[in-house]
Amino acid sequence: MSTHTDRLHDRKFVRTFFTTPTAVKGEDDSAKMLRRAAQLSGIEAPDVWVPDNEDATAPSMRDEGIENIIDVLSEHGADVPGEIHPRVVWHRESPETRYQGFQQILELADPENGAVEHLDGVVIPEVGDIDDWKKADEFITIVENEHGLEEGSLAMSVIVESGEAELALGDLREEMGKPSNNLERLFLLVDGEVDYTKDMRAITPTGELPPWPELRHNTSRGASAAGLIAIDGPYDDIRDVEGYHERMTDNQAKGMLGIWSLTPGQVVEANKSPLPPKEGSWLLEVDDREIELEAEDDHYVYEGDAIELEEAADDRYKLSVGGDERELDSDELSQELLNLASYIPSLNDIVDSMEEFEAAKEAGKGAIAMERSATIVVDGVEVEISNDRMWDEATYQAAQTPITLFQDVYENRPDQHEDLEEMYGEDLVERAMVVG
Amino acid sequence: MSTHTDRLHDRKFVRTFFTTPTAVKGEDDSAKMLRRAAQLSGIEAPDVWVPDNEDATAPSMRDEGIENIIDVLSEHGADVPGEIHPRVVWHRESPETRYQGFQQILELADPENGAVEHLDGVVIPEVGDIDDWKKADEFITIVENEHGLEEGSLAMSVIVESGEAELALGDLREEMGKPSNNLERLFLLVDGEVDYTKDMRAITPTGELPPWPELRHNTSRGASAAGLIAIDGPYDDIRDVEGYHERMTDNQAKGMLGIWSLTPGQVVEANKSPLPPKEGSWLLEVDDREIELEAEDDHYVYEGDAIELEEAADDRYKLSVGGDERELDSDELSQELLNLASYIPSLNDIVDSMEEFEAAKEAGKGAIAMERSATIVVDGVEVEISNDRMWDEATYQAAQTPITLFQDVYENRPDQHEDLEEMYGEDLVERAMVVG
Amino acid sequence: MSTHTDRLHDRKFVRTFFTTPTAVKGEDDSAKMLRRAAQLSGIEAPDVWVPDNEDATAPSMRDEGIENIIDVLSEHGADVPGEIHPRVVWHRESPETRYQGFQQILELADPENGAVEHLDGVVIPEVGDIDDWKKADEFITIVENEHGLEEGSLAMSVIVESGEAELALGDLREEMGKPSNNLERLFLLVDGEVDYTKDMRAITPTGELPPWPELRHNTSRGASAAGLIAIDGPYDDIRDVEGYHERMTDNQAKGMLGIWSLTPGQVVEANKSPLPPKEGSWLLEVDDREIELEAEDDHYVYEGDAIELEEAADDRYKLSVGGDERELDSDELSQELLNLASYIPSLNDIVDSMEEFEAAKEAGKGAIAMERSATIVVDGVEVEISNDRMWDEATYQAAQTPITLFQDVYENRPDQHEDLEEMYGEDLVERAMVVG
Repeated sequence: MSTHTDRLHDRKFVRTFFTTPTAVKGEDDSAKMLRRAAQLSGIEAPDVWVPDNEDATAPSMRDEGIENIIDVLSEHGADVPGEIHPRVVWHRESPETRYQGFQQILELADPENGAVEHLDGVVIPEVGDIDDWKKADEFITIVENEHGLEEGSLAMSVIVESGEAELALGDLREEMGKPSNNLERLFLLVDGEVDYTKDMRAITPTGELPPWPELRHNTSRGASAAGLIAIDGPYDDIRDVEGYHERMTDNQAKGMLGIWSLTPGQVVEANKSPLPPKEGSWLLEVDDREIELEAEDDHYVYEGDAIELEEAADDRYKLSVGGDERELDSDELSQELLNLASYIPSLNDIVDSMEEFEAAKEAGKGAIAMERSATIVVDGVEVEISNDRMWDEATYQAAQTPITLFQDVYENRPDQHEDLEEMYGEDLVERAMVVG
Repeated sequence: MSTHTDRLHDRKFVRTFFTTPTAVKGEDDSAKMLRRAAQLSGIEAPDVWVPDNEDATAPSMRDEGIENIIDVLSEHGADVPGEIHPRVVWHRESPETRYQGFQQILELADPENGAVEHLDGVVIPEVGDIDDWKKADEFITIVENEHGLEEGSLAMSVIVESGEAELALGDLREEMGKPSNNLERLFLLVDGEVDYTKDMRAITPTGELPPWPELRHNTSRGASAAGLIAIDGPYDDIRDVEGYHERMTDNQAKGMLGIWSLTPGQVVEANKSPLPPKEGSWLLEVDDREIELEAEDDHYVYEGDAIELEEAADDRYKLSVGGDERELDSDELSQELLNLASYIPSLNDIVDSMEEFEAAKEAGKGAIAMERSATIVVDGVEVEISNDRMWDEATYQAAQTPITLFQDVYENRPDQHEDLEEMYGEDLVERAMVVG
Repeated sequence: MSTHTDRLHDRKFVRTFFTTPTAVKGEDDSAKMLRRAAQLSGIEAPDVWVPDNEDATAPSMRDEGIENIIDVLSEHGADVPGEIHPRVVWHRESPETRYQGFQQILELADPENGAVEHLDGVVIPEVGDIDDWKKADEFITIVENEHGLEEGSLAMSVIVESGEAELALGDLREEMGKPSNNLERLFLLVDGEVDYTKDMRAITPTGELPPWPELRHNTSRGASAAGLIAIDGPYDDIRDVEGYHERMTDNQAKGMLGIWSLTPGQVVEANKSPLPPKEGSWLLEVDDREIELEAEDDHYVYEGDAIELEEAADDRYKLSVGGDERELDSDELSQELLNLASYIPSLNDIVDSMEEFEAAKEAGKGAIAMERSATIVVDGVEVEISNDRMWDEATYQAAQTPITLFQDVYENRPDQHEDLEEMYGEDLVERAMVVG
């Protein structure tokens, strides 16, 4: 059954959106960065590669940029493992810029230039209302017609970087069905928080970007409702790997599984981030900091100082969490640590749980309690904890997302098979491919 | 004056939405759980009881489930203290499922089956666009007509568990007025975060549900704009009472005063949660943890370790908060503790404040400063704190919500009178019923 | 080029929205507060002054309130340094109240009363759907026509304090273009969280207002998409200056640069808040608390207790953050402190960075890495930290907002020149006015 929210594109998931300047002045070869990026492969290569002929390239270099894209795609396009979607210029408030964008697409897609066979689509920045999205769509339709390409064959992705564009996310599902446009070509909805911050006139004391949780939610929801894929914008503190990971974890909890990457190093991190870990782990959370416990022979040991635990008389315990001390009996202690603890399941664990529920369903049960228990050690004191979650059909299907993503990556990125096997071992990869 | 946002249903507030599997395989009596749930009363009985013929019941058991609902309602329906709204099957992407849902409603509402007189409405899961909501509404209209029921007499509640349905929340107010539908039958807007998480393709490291604050906001806002009632989805860590309470407090601050309950234990907690406490209390907040102070003869004593206070020379004080020490004079100290402190008013306190404002209004004042002061004791040092809030007409009306909820509960749930009197004392219950 | 999101009003930014009761019973002169507020100037005077004939004034005093506004505007209006926008009565659910509001505007704008030449617009509270906004707009059009004023010359600001009004924010951009209304007169979108809390039926344990982040986001986005200005509602704990500042910082990160003020003291804080500081400063953030470091000869010294640092053998370090201790080498230490640290740039710093990027752009670069480094001292140990941010055209433009705001204030508020020069020094003010 095909429905309006089915994703129409080859990729059901996109983890990485990697931009490269198209022409840099002062180099012997202004296409040097482009040429190098085109030759990335494996875990360093993005799912979507974006030769960026807009903000990353100086305005004076953009004509040369288009020629560079054509050269590099003609030469290396066939070997690029991900999809290729150059960003052209566009602005909702400037017909001049929109016409330049049209000309850039016309040039990129000209079969005589030899790049179009490697071109999966284009990225349109600075869109406004849905009517502005339609203008870009119409130009692409004209380009397709002019060059004898199939209507709708070039994908269109947009950068959501204005309040108007954010509002348009609510109209997409309805507008995409209309016969007077080809908006079914839409592929990625990418947040552009830098320009969005400007458009919203936001200020932070440090000049860092605001977190914009509502924008990311609305983008993810728009993607969900219209069968598209949501991508977060650039994380510009390029040395802060931990911060980049925190941002991706936050995004993933919003259903935004892909992110912009500015460097090959960021591509590696972003390609790996949404995949489940090989090993499960227990965490304790104190004062919003999560501390991973050390696994020692089926016990999980807390080695920080923020939690202190001591046995008192009569089977009672003194527990101090972040400087706040309480005396508890053993049940209360177990409950208290359970509240602080959480478990991050491995790829293996996820598959196991799914199978357990499948068996229960076979046996005529609609819902079962799924238990997870552990022995946690704090200051030498051992505490058994155990928690229950109700699983029903919906829980089961929600748990499937990381598995589906894993399978999508494996099918579409043969160049990453070796990396996946190195990360998980060959056996686990094979089992993950048949599950679900 | 009747307006479009007036709530058209008997209940203006719903605290609890309790689901029960309709047929469990392998039991002597597959309706055992249903039969037990139907006989709950008092604080263990929900405001809305939902025999769940969808996710909580295995697909192979759902025909039997409908018969069980009919049996149990015929036998016990008259004694169920809350409203009864079974959940039938439905899916925005499956006409087959939708037709099954129609047949289930047709069967439940058939007067010959003897259950319809106890049936307040039905719950439709997995709705999509507003046009999908209309399909369900139309089926209910047909059922009503077929069985000689008054048009609009069966309420319809929906589970919001897709991006599309979330977007539909913005259309409700406009669509409900149209003559071609009976959407005025809408009653509850219930978030279904598990399926929503699947639909949004979100991932969390631990597999816990994301918090989805924007979804809950949009649901609450949709309810407010269309005169409906917003309910949060299931909290599946059923042993984590503290976590359930935190979730309810968070919901209440969004205007979502009701929540799903999976067990009678959760029903008890959820029935009590939005009611004001009997006794007021002072809190100090350090590092996002709120510590309730011990009341001792009009003094409020802090007994934790996260705050330390010591008198120094010359009427100065050393205050250490979470490891960060400062020297302050007595005014600064008082201001600092005031910033950390907050007061949770009792039912009594709320009534007192409302009366004080009413008196001021009588005297021609539009706004007054409302003062609250206390003596707080940290490490033996006594500190007087006092804060002011401006109250105007709007503040007064906003403060009234918990009182209105209390009165709605008292009027609609005679089976809980005893519980309320046990919680608050008879006098306080009487006074709370005449206030406002 | 004029576009639909250009702001059509004299002020591009409004920092302060100061309400004053129009008539207080029991005083010799019921207009005393109004008269005093009209004579504020400099940093104590708001950008927008709102004689409040709605919630701040008792219903019985509102006729007198209108006369008082007329008297005070006739006498002092010419000297009021900000704009003047009285609030009249209105309610989406009461035609009676709406008609009263119409009569109040008719009276205020009557040229024979001598106040209209000082009247910049009116504030309409309690609006509902966009159709309700149009009713108010139509009344103002009629008033303009009746009194021979230019159509659209009176601005209209609204208080968003219902779910319906929040939904209307999504329709504004489309509706404002229609020939059948004059909604181009819209100026401020002001959140009214007290009434909104009532309308949403939200409850908090302490009775404090919920933070409503989504409402503020949607208001700011609506303003951005329609060329209007977003203002946050009243902060009613009037003694809590720190809390007021935190709220404003939070608002600014949402693009909501203005806030309601209830007292001249709040006006001072709110006028200063969105302006960049004179001196830059380094912060360390531990457990969500940000500690400003002391500058000593180019070193920045941490003086709190939440972070402890000690040199161990072999060029290794023991770092304890909030009770969690780790041993690190010098690179890890530097990275760790970098993660905790952030820099708040001064007006000067912002200008410097903008110039550096402009030079790079001239040289044909579309993006450059902007470095900021410092020596941080914890427990006597010196640590060098350094971070990089990628700047491109968009970063540059986003950084410009505080400068544009500064320039807007300087141009529109000559009465604050002295205050600005006192805050920043004459030289810095001059340089800030020519930058960008």
